[in-house]
Amino acid sequence: MDRRQRQEPACKTETQWAVAVGRGGGGRRPGQPLAAGTCPSPTALLAGRQERFLLGNLQAHNQPASSRQVPQAGAQPGARKPRPTPAGMCSVPVPQAPLRRVAVTGGTHGNELSGVYLARHWLRDPRELRRPSFSATPVLANPAAAAACRRYVDRDLNRTFTDTLLVSRATPNDPHELTRARELDQLLGPKASGSDRAFDFVLDLHNTTANMGTCLLVDGAHNTFALHLSRHLQLQFPEVPCQVLLTRPPQSARESFSLDSVAKNGMTVELGPQPQGVLRADIFSRMRALVASALDFMELFNQGAAFPAFEMEVYRNLGGEDFPRTQDGDLAGMVHPQLQVREQLACHQDRDYEPLQPGAPIFQKFSGEDVLYEGDSTVYPVFINEAAYYEKHVAFLRTEKLMISVPPLPPLSPTPTQVL
Amino acid sequence: MDRRQRQEPACKTETQWAVAVGRGGGGRRPGQPLAAGTCPSPTALLAGRQERFLLGNLQAHNQPASSRQVPQAGAQPGARKPRPTPAGMCSVPVPQAPLRRVAVTGGTHGNELSGVYLARHWLRDPRELRRPSFSATPVLANPAAAAACRRYVDRDLNRTFTDTLLVSRATPNDPHELTRARELDQLLGPKASGSDRAFDFVLDLHNTTANMGTCLLVDGAHNTFALHLSRHLQLQFPEVPCQVLLTRPPQSARESFSLDSVAKNGMTVELGPQPQGVLRADIFSRMRALVASALDFMELFNQGAAFPAFEMEVYRNLGGEDFPRTQDGDLAGMVHPQLQVREQLACHQDRDYEPLQPGAPIFQKFSGEDVLYEGDSTVYPVFINEAAYYEKHVAFLRTEKLMISVPPLPPLSPTPTQVL
Repeated sequence: MDRRQRQEPACKTETQWAVAVGRGGGGRRPGQPLAAGTCPSPTALLAGRQERFLLGNLQAHNQPASSRQVPQAGAQPGARKPRPTPAGMCSVPVPQAPLRRVAVTGGTHGNELSGVYLARHWLRDPRELRRPSFSATPVLANPAAAAACRRYVDRDLNRTFTDTLLVSRATPNDPHELTRARELDQLLGPKASGSDRAFDFVLDLHNTTANMGTCLLVDGAHNTFALHLSRHLQLQFPEVPCQVLLTRPPQSARESFSLDSVAKNGMTVELGPQPQGVLRADIFSRMRALVASALDFMELFNQGAAFPAFEMEVYRNLGGEDFPRTQDGDLAGMVHPQLQVREQLACHQDRDYEPLQPGAPIFQKFSGEDVLYEGDSTVYPVFINEAAYYEKHVAFLRTEKLMISVPPLPPLSPTPTQVL
Repeated sequence: MDRRQRQEPACKTETQWAVAVGRGGGGRRPGQPLAAGTCPSPTALLAGRQERFLLGNLQAHNQPASSRQVPQAGAQPGARKPRPTPAGMCSVPVPQAPLRRVAVTGGTHGNELSGVYLARHWLRDPRELRRPSFSATPVLANPAAAAACRRYVDRDLNRTFTDTLLVSRATPNDPHELTRARELDQLLGPKASGSDRAFDFVLDLHNTTANMGTCLLVDGAHNTFALHLSRHLQLQFPEVPCQVLLTRPPQSARESFSLDSVAKNGMTVELGPQPQGVLRADIFSRMRALVASALDFMELFNQGAAFPAFEMEVYRNLGGEDFPRTQDGDLAGMVHPQLQVREQLACHQDRDYEPLQPGAPIFQKFSGEDVLYEGDSTVYPVFINEAAYYEKHVAFLRTEKLMISVPPLPPLSPTPTQVL
């Protein structure tokens, strides 16, 4: 699998690929399978690590032949570009070999402390990251920013992994994060060359100040492996919102820029709400458990498990909405309390993922005037009031809610047996 | 009134002065008066500005003679030091003249955005800060830090207003905040000389990441005027926690260092929870309303209102508690979920102001081990997980909960009539 060059203009990826069977939610629960499948139950998965792998392995091999999946067209190992399916749709090729080189990165933003301290902990004691068929590599992505407890030193590291920047000639005056991006590209990629030595998967850990619970950022509906991983995490963590956000806007031809884009595949995890510069034990523990479950999923896959098709509710990024501003560019208002604050049983809970209708108030100006949403259809705002997005002129992201059909994830064959 | 030199060693201020009539709360509601008084009711105060002032004025003059208060010993205008009361206790002299020079400062910390944007708004349009007898001056305390959306540029401005620093000789290499502190001292003080030209009152606006609702920081129980102002605000805002924190630890001889200490009197307002770099409409509006009410109180006082004695529940700072740390000084754990997170009707609310018993868990180490509170009595943590206090090695402040008796605030005589 490799989605590092998936942005080529000829490939209209998820807008064609994703079969939207419903908008605005429906009767099917996110992650609910379309048919009885071979994926181990959450209960089985939570019952001890060794047993879990064996169970996954056994289940994979005990499945009826009809549920075994034929590898998709264009899914050869080493293929570096999304390939059109026979129906003209694109997808990231699913892995044809076990995932051996997996990285878990924290501190890509130095003031998002769950990932910073998990990375530091794992660098001292990486035992939690070991699985029978692989050991994930912990990486503190931006140590200088973490030491200063700032998002970044010179520029946003997680916007710096474009081909253009990574292959540019280094100079002594380069911003700190450009130098660091090149280092990480050498460690986890390289992205530009499409080399086989790139990591198989990068899981990048973030926090948000928005009330987004657990949000799994997947580049698009074409990324079958990441969506199966997301569904696995949703089933493991049913007690808090665990949503999938497809980050690439429709028809976007933008170059990928995030840290996980240097590897063959990857995903970003956002947990919130947590202020910048704060470490909350509840969110730290949830992130730690999410990473463990993600590695368990990769182990199941490596051991030969197959995962059936399913439908999934996702939110797809439609772009950012800026704050009202003064003529000199400063804020003229703030997110409207009706958009942000839901009063519920004497406690406040913010309104990420909730429908926003045209004409509803979205900002409150300091003068007292309301600013209404002028879109022509219902959207579902996320990243409402994310601290780091003020400078990016984004008060929230508009998304649409879709049901997508995710194809099966076929089992590896033959089953790998490497035990570390 | 002037409490700028109140820390002189001979004056044992609040530890003697505060009459602790109970600990750990009691049957009396905070702010409840000891006797029928002359303070306008909250309803009356909310009913239009002009009417409010008239009502306050009338009430002040219609009060029975027995509730009129005799000025305290040592309360002469121009007095610059806390004076011992006849009982040997100290207090800040209450004002003997109308408050004419009042400042409302925001952005003392550049990433606490409620105050930053209120100050910017009022600098453009100060009408909200006008009252018949005075107009408050808006001040953006640290514009450079606000522009960078950081707490400070070189050092914490709100720890820089000591006599020692303010009178030190300026050099070209001074930290930005030392230079700015001297400027603010010239604008609002000066503190060191005890000059009459100092502002009568500075209200300094802050946000915290902790779940502290509205917290009014008063230097000590000797500050009668600030405690009457606090009680007024508590009565105006009964719907959210509105607590008083006495900031000076018992027997402390430390030099005062905060911005409001350069004026004759002052108070700091902390509103939370709000992440650094985020502007929440609900908190912004509450801060704006608090400032309006504080100015209304000063206007009532200026118009000759008297305010009777009352009892008040307060939290008194006992000092900070540091995180568990590694040998190299990094965090070894975080605030324990039992200390921070209270599960209540499916929503989380943090546990500031709640009792912490000896032996209860306060930290969770990354290794999984709990750290227990080793104090020998119940304390009431506040500023739990305040982002800015990590660097100060403070995970939370320990406080004790006290009931104090606040003496009456006598009316001015003769009644001032200046109308701007």
